[in-house]
Amino acid sequence: MKDLPTSSLLRLRSTSGHALETDLYELTMAAAYFDNKEIFKATFELFVRNYPKNRSYLVAAGLEQAVEYLTQLRFTEAEIEFLKKHPNFKSVSDDFFQYLDKFKFTGELWALPEGTVFFRNEPILRVTAPIIEAQIAETYLLSVINYETLIATKASRIVQSARGKGVVEFGSRRAHGPQAALLAARAGYIGGCIGTSNVLAGYLYKIPTYGTMAHSFIMSYDSEEEAFEKFCRVIPQPSFLVDTYDSIEGIKKVIATEQTPGMIRLDSGDRLELSRKARKILDRAGYKETKIFVSGDLNEYILNNLTLKKAPIDFFGVGTELVTSRDDPALPGIYKLVSVTREGRDVYRAKTSEGKMTLPGPKQIYRLYNAKRRIREDIITLDDERVPYGGRPLLLKVLENGDIVNELPAIDEIRNFAKQERETLPSQFLRLTGSETPPVRLSTKLERLARSVWSKRGSRSRRRI
Amino acid sequence: MKDLPTSSLLRLRSTSGHALETDLYELTMAAAYFDNKEIFKATFELFVRNYPKNRSYLVAAGLEQAVEYLTQLRFTEAEIEFLKKHPNFKSVSDDFFQYLDKFKFTGELWALPEGTVFFRNEPILRVTAPIIEAQIAETYLLSVINYETLIATKASRIVQSARGKGVVEFGSRRAHGPQAALLAARAGYIGGCIGTSNVLAGYLYKIPTYGTMAHSFIMSYDSEEEAFEKFCRVIPQPSFLVDTYDSIEGIKKVIATEQTPGMIRLDSGDRLELSRKARKILDRAGYKETKIFVSGDLNEYILNNLTLKKAPIDFFGVGTELVTSRDDPALPGIYKLVSVTREGRDVYRAKTSEGKMTLPGPKQIYRLYNAKRRIREDIITLDDERVPYGGRPLLLKVLENGDIVNELPAIDEIRNFAKQERETLPSQFLRLTGSETPPVRLSTKLERLARSVWSKRGSRSRRRI
Repeated sequence: MKDLPTSSLLRLRSTSGHALETDLYELTMAAAYFDNKEIFKATFELFVRNYPKNRSYLVAAGLEQAVEYLTQLRFTEAEIEFLKKHPNFKSVSDDFFQYLDKFKFTGELWALPEGTVFFRNEPILRVTAPIIEAQIAETYLLSVINYETLIATKASRIVQSARGKGVVEFGSRRAHGPQAALLAARAGYIGGCIGTSNVLAGYLYKIPTYGTMAHSFIMSYDSEEEAFEKFCRVIPQPSFLVDTYDSIEGIKKVIATEQTPGMIRLDSGDRLELSRKARKILDRAGYKETKIFVSGDLNEYILNNLTLKKAPIDFFGVGTELVTSRDDPALPGIYKLVSVTREGRDVYRAKTSEGKMTLPGPKQIYRLYNAKRRIREDIITLDDERVPYGGRPLLLKVLENGDIVNELPAIDEIRNFAKQERETLPSQFLRLTGSETPPVRLSTKLERLARSVWSKRGSRSRRRI
Repeated sequence: MKDLPTSSLLRLRSTSGHALETDLYELTMAAAYFDNKEIFKATFELFVRNYPKNRSYLVAAGLEQAVEYLTQLRFTEAEIEFLKKHPNFKSVSDDFFQYLDKFKFTGELWALPEGTVFFRNEPILRVTAPIIEAQIAETYLLSVINYETLIATKASRIVQSARGKGVVEFGSRRAHGPQAALLAARAGYIGGCIGTSNVLAGYLYKIPTYGTMAHSFIMSYDSEEEAFEKFCRVIPQPSFLVDTYDSIEGIKKVIATEQTPGMIRLDSGDRLELSRKARKILDRAGYKETKIFVSGDLNEYILNNLTLKKAPIDFFGVGTELVTSRDDPALPGIYKLVSVTREGRDVYRAKTSEGKMTLPGPKQIYRLYNAKRRIREDIITLDDERVPYGGRPLLLKVLENGDIVNELPAIDEIRNFAKQERETLPSQFLRLTGSETPPVRLSTKLERLARSVWSKRGSRSRRRI
């Protein structure tokens, strides 16, 4: 495994605050299992029951953060003291707190490699461990996988709509806090952005960082001309922000500077009309090589419209809409128990509540392709079933006995893989609106098992995948 | 100032990764100012130009994180090395990097106290400092203030719709990463939640933490009865989750346990109908004191409907919709230059781009109340204007020369203050839908200044506040 970056996320963990990044009930359940002397093995799977709006596929991301978490999960003394004093733990044995003091994750993790395209109801992670270890991890795993997968998927849509023009992630200021900004830069890059404005993402994750200039820089000088000239003295060939007062006038002032402008940036107004005017003015001035960068409340729908109309735009900066996945800001990933080993026997489990039924048993996914290397079908099987002929298993083993068994790829490998993966999607899955039925079926054995577990629980609902 | 919690956020900062939590252009602009020898004083203001959908007021939050940031902002050696090698800095002087090595924030901060209700276009923060210091802080300040204010505002709407019933923040797993989960717990509490499921928020911020049990706990046993009994042995009088297989059957099984149930939790199905049935069953069994807790995709609109119909629900757990502010997940706060001091003279600045005009000059807000202590009017003035008669100044000084001058309040004080503040809103601002015109006007002097600055820039647009 490559050296993990000495990231803020990571450092946060190696000191404190890490094990408590969870819901209280994970810890009360842990105490209940422990004091009942029931530390049996269990398997949980993380999957998404429903797509966000207008999505027909998802791009897996967040595994690196999940692995960092699981391999470094520890309780500090101060954290244990805090729990001891918590009213919910007043009847809990001292042995439990001693157990927490030595706690570490010793289980097994299977996962979709980051960048994999996948569909609803397909497991992204599968965790097998003594039940307390697997249970405590639920909240953190969900929060990183849900968020990064949400953003990698949104980025994939935006990049597709850019039709080959570069998309830079620009949303740190509207992300849900500084850590979300960092994770969005990472997931956005996996989803196909060419880089980010977030400097920490450059420092920690080696993602290319880009920047132009702010309106405040222009405004701090008496004239735009002066601001442009002063900036160029220090940062040669910058991207000139031209819309502080009036975009067209701004472009003319850029041309009036002595420097050849590398790029101009339009951040407001009608971007289609302005980019066309800008291109004409620049071309007439002999600056055919000067690029046009456009930003300001962009999303996949707007980009699609601009690129369809062949707006002469070279780069897009996308912020708020990308980092918040604004049209649907939550990926409803869930983490469900699928089996327990009690008295040496594996017992398959499923939930049967109305509208919230789950599939029992530890699973694998096999992907089949057509002659053009497009996805033909995914088959969800039990993990010990025979491999369907020609099927590629999607879930790979990452941790065994709590240790990494498969090196995690570098970020550029992940990004390239995500690009290849996107190319395996049949075109109907790439539509920007509507939601396609997933090309997924259950193996006969899994389907039979599910029906048997559900009917035992007396569920009246019929479940379709 | 109270001891700052040794938070993960904070620790992150005191080691590394802190100063780079910014957009690249903040640093290129810093280099441009520095190498042009232009480290003049500047004032920036952070404000929200437009409300999120259906909002007519906002609840200020995030100041504590902003203060932590400004007082601890430093560059490490490794971070400076990273910037030195960055292509955008190849023409930057060595002096600049030496400056970064000694960099700290030495300026002044004025802010709305957390919990203050306020309106669009009103400054939340006002930063006055040497321009590089004020500029570098932009991205981080926006990300914490935007997010916490967004969530405190959403919580305020949800709590109002609960009509006196307790609301618990339950959304860590759907927040945009673990840090967002922590900040959402904090902002949710400020907005009126009675607590959170996030254990770290309890540990760091002393927010009450709550938890029930997960479906997985029930599912790991052969029967619900066994699961309930085992749990009660360790965690007395828990909240019983009854909907794993069938909610009504689940309630009957709770009653069959020997314990008096403190609470039951309904997490799926028709919550109105189920809560009524549950109440009847519990009452008939003599458990009139047993509380009903409801969760599962709740928001202010659903709560309003349930409480209007007098559903017999005692507590609500609200997750995804709260922590992502799902109906509108971004607060479009911006941070704009309002004045610079050049050659000893204060010059007022404003942006005049189409649809994005700003108000020049450092400002204060004065609030006037009617006889019933409801907000009558806010007057935005220049910071050195005469106080309007009876007006309460809303922006308070927090930092001077980079040091804290006013102790920050404890979280419970903030929460109580937010409650009082909400009570000063005239009822039309509390409607769940639509958006009310803000009760805000500009002082004559500010209005005159704005017109003069705008017209100098030749803006053709008319601006209304």
